[in-house]
Amino acid sequence: MGRWLPDAHGRLARAALELYSERGFEQTTALEIAERAGVTERTFFRYFADKREVLFQGSQELQRIILEAIAQTPADVRPVDAVIAAIDTVGGLVFDRAHSVRRATIIAANPALQERELLKFSTLTASVAGALRERGVAEPSATLAAETGVTVFKIGFERWITGTPSEDWAECIRDTVRQLRDVTPSLIVSQV
Amino acid sequence: MGRWLPDAHGRLARAALELYSERGFEQTTALEIAERAGVTERTFFRYFADKREVLFQGSQELQRIILEAIAQTPADVRPVDAVIAAIDTVGGLVFDRAHSVRRATIIAANPALQERELLKFSTLTASVAGALRERGVAEPSATLAAETGVTVFKIGFERWITGTPSEDWAECIRDTVRQLRDVTPSLIVSQV
Repeated sequence: MGRWLPDAHGRLARAALELYSERGFEQTTALEIAERAGVTERTFFRYFADKREVLFQGSQELQRIILEAIAQTPADVRPVDAVIAAIDTVGGLVFDRAHSVRRATIIAANPALQERELLKFSTLTASVAGALRERGVAEPSATLAAETGVTVFKIGFERWITGTPSEDWAECIRDTVRQLRDVTPSLIVSQV
Repeated sequence: MGRWLPDAHGRLARAALELYSERGFEQTTALEIAERAGVTERTFFRYFADKREVLFQGSQELQRIILEAIAQTPADVRPVDAVIAAIDTVGGLVFDRAHSVRRATIIAANPALQERELLKFSTLTASVAGALRERGVAEPSATLAAETGVTVFKIGFERWITGTPSEDWAECIRDTVRQLRDVTPSLIVSQV
């Protein structure tokens, strides 16, 4: 294949994460990423709108898979359980643990990236609520189920990347659901 | 009192919300707000760091009251119930309904303000989780209880400002808790 290198997208993504880890996100340029990946800066911009996009391109794919899984869940499954089952499904399909750990570390070090991550979860929650409304779930139940599901996702994900590497995704999600059930608020609350 | 007008802070806040509603947030300047309030631009900046701050200055006060209420809850109250009770408490103290409706409309019209609002809730969640850890609650239960409480806050608030004006804050919170309990995920989820 001569000088042409296959999988430019994957090599650019890996090079970007390496550089963000080594030098920090702000200190890395698109040109440096392209050079490390062995392609031109123009090739970088063919795959990614900007430096940030390298870290968030997967989010749309993740959202698409979750929404599709919800749509395919049998109608008699409770809405919130459909969301949790969808989240359970994506783990094996989407995430590489080493990549996820590295990405999380880069984001934790940069407030602007953290805000982008918040926005990602907020968009996911709104989309999941929309998918539930399409299943006939009324508001505010749709949004409450979506918020609950996304909380399980966030906390389960956190556990998956910080816990023992042997613990699998489904286990982290299941355990987070168990812990969430223990913090269900009581009905009578106005006693303070 | 001559030309000196009392409550410059309150008049600036009201003038700002009027102008943001009439012209849009982006189209309003600090000078215009000051003029409508009958003070100088310099006075505006004595009270607010910038235009956005007019909409978010209350958030810190809100957070302070919630954290204080959690700290004062008897130790035998379940953590999540302490959070809900604290949220129940703030309603009567902090919010004016007409002001809240107007503020929500302004924020809904501006993506940058929406992001700031997301950040506010994220900060509140982290602070509430911190307050629960101080009560001896371990992770991830502290964060799960905080996420649950802030979800009830958001959805209850939404209901309070969009529902019938006669429905009071405590009623909105109580009803949201009831609906949240109905979307508690089941223990077994991996059947899709």
